[in-house]
Amino acid sequence: MASEMLTAAMAEIAAEIDSRFDDMLRVPDDARADLYRAMRHATIGGGKRLRPVLVFATAALFNVDRDSTARVATAIEAIHVYSLIHDDLPAMDDDDMRRGKPTVHKAFDEATAVLAGDCLHALAFEVLADPATHADPFVRAELVLDLARAAGPAGMAGGQMMDLAADRGGFDLATVTRLQALKTGALIAASVEAGAILGRLPAEGRTGLRGYAHDLGLAFQIADDLLDAEGDEAVAGKRLRKDGEQGKETFLTLLGVDRAREQCRMLVEQAIAHLHAFGTEADLLRAIARFVEERDR
Amino acid sequence: MASEMLTAAMAEIAAEIDSRFDDMLRVPDDARADLYRAMRHATIGGGKRLRPVLVFATAALFNVDRDSTARVATAIEAIHVYSLIHDDLPAMDDDDMRRGKPTVHKAFDEATAVLAGDCLHALAFEVLADPATHADPFVRAELVLDLARAAGPAGMAGGQMMDLAADRGGFDLATVTRLQALKTGALIAASVEAGAILGRLPAEGRTGLRGYAHDLGLAFQIADDLLDAEGDEAVAGKRLRKDGEQGKETFLTLLGVDRAREQCRMLVEQAIAHLHAFGTEADLLRAIARFVEERDR
Repeated sequence: MASEMLTAAMAEIAAEIDSRFDDMLRVPDDARADLYRAMRHATIGGGKRLRPVLVFATAALFNVDRDSTARVATAIEAIHVYSLIHDDLPAMDDDDMRRGKPTVHKAFDEATAVLAGDCLHALAFEVLADPATHADPFVRAELVLDLARAAGPAGMAGGQMMDLAADRGGFDLATVTRLQALKTGALIAASVEAGAILGRLPAEGRTGLRGYAHDLGLAFQIADDLLDAEGDEAVAGKRLRKDGEQGKETFLTLLGVDRAREQCRMLVEQAIAHLHAFGTEADLLRAIARFVEERDR
Repeated sequence: MASEMLTAAMAEIAAEIDSRFDDMLRVPDDARADLYRAMRHATIGGGKRLRPVLVFATAALFNVDRDSTARVATAIEAIHVYSLIHDDLPAMDDDDMRRGKPTVHKAFDEATAVLAGDCLHALAFEVLADPATHADPFVRAELVLDLARAAGPAGMAGGQMMDLAADRGGFDLATVTRLQALKTGALIAASVEAGAILGRLPAEGRTGLRGYAHDLGLAFQIADDLLDAEGDEAVAGKRLRKDGEQGKETFLTLLGVDRAREQCRMLVEQAIAHLHAFGTEADLLRAIARFVEERDR
């Protein structure tokens, strides 16, 4: 039952996010046309939209205005997509396929890919700071601070730097955990935090949601490692089996398949336990946690 | 006299900005060390700091708190430096020298350069949205919006995309003017606007300052084109004569040296004329305009 509710919510949110990017990225009739086409290629029609779903699911706990929620969810997804575009570059992870399509530097060129990522990065903050996102400037400023910290050197981009170093091997479990807390955990946590900010939940009331987001982020990454080792490339829409080829330390190489799967399951249970103060209004957040454990893409 | 005042102000502001980046970018003892070293390499000790000087000079019209001004100036310089790092990449302008030093991808590597740029981009918004920058969240949100618009596809990054297309030739004067208004004009305008936002000048009172910034931005770019054709690489600290080699349309190829120089002079006079409502408190802004015409780096 939970799964059906989640599937419906995910489909609805994915359509909403597609429509927002479609509106935001109208192709201009000048030399920037390919820049906008590249952003559309990367943002529209693809991905699980996990971060937007988390924003919606958290905001739903507090009856936040739906347009505000959608704007914030779109901004966070824009940051996520910019990071995918840059991470896929030849100088970084050098990937040709993403979400079942050629990566941006393959479909366009490297310069366009760098700039398309940079533009989505700036657009995310433009959307958050816009008075249309929330009437209260305190909420807008707090959303910007939340996302900027999660995206920068103490978050996603810092984690990607550690990930490039991990290719050289020698990382232990504590370091891999820290790496992943930054690389994917920070933006997942920022998505839940954004829902709480929109809901005007005071910082001291956010402990449960933060615990949920922390455990969910780690579970998500372990599931990602399992998917890399055991998944189907056609379903995942990207190249798999990269970690093994590169001799890189991951949760999987450090724990082995069975313990990694067990750890993922435990983290999902723990994430759900953090939601004990909420009733059925948090069922979508619970369903997301179970989805993370079972996902195949 | 004006020139001495400007030289002293520029030296003082440059030292302040260096010190802010030094504090902000302490190298951590983990796999992100090179990321921080790359950001330090690019941000500390170099450049004219034109955008910070504009923030300080505009904020000085309204007696803005000096720490607030310095934080905003640092954030805008961080955006400028991130754009230099990315523009210098092999896939973009492919430059080896910048501010008299190797470019970031030469001193480190391409992946580190992409991420160092991305991190400075995020840090700029983190600084602006931080309550330490200004007590009023409305001011913080307005600063973020101002800078995000100037940095994105309708500003700096959009202008860089047009600039890459300009290498293929065929641009007329109107298109080159539009390109430069985006590529360098937007961030120069955002610097002056940020000073006005900090000064709580209502939008309807900003016409003169906006006119100043617009004309200054164009004058700056024409001077840059003249410098590319006639400057000294050792003084400029970067490769020159690139435009001529590439057969690219610029103000210089379209106007010729004499008309370009005349146009630059006229724009500087026009910029200064926009400041007529201000007294001696705007002398620094006037001196900046004259400096732009006479600069050799």
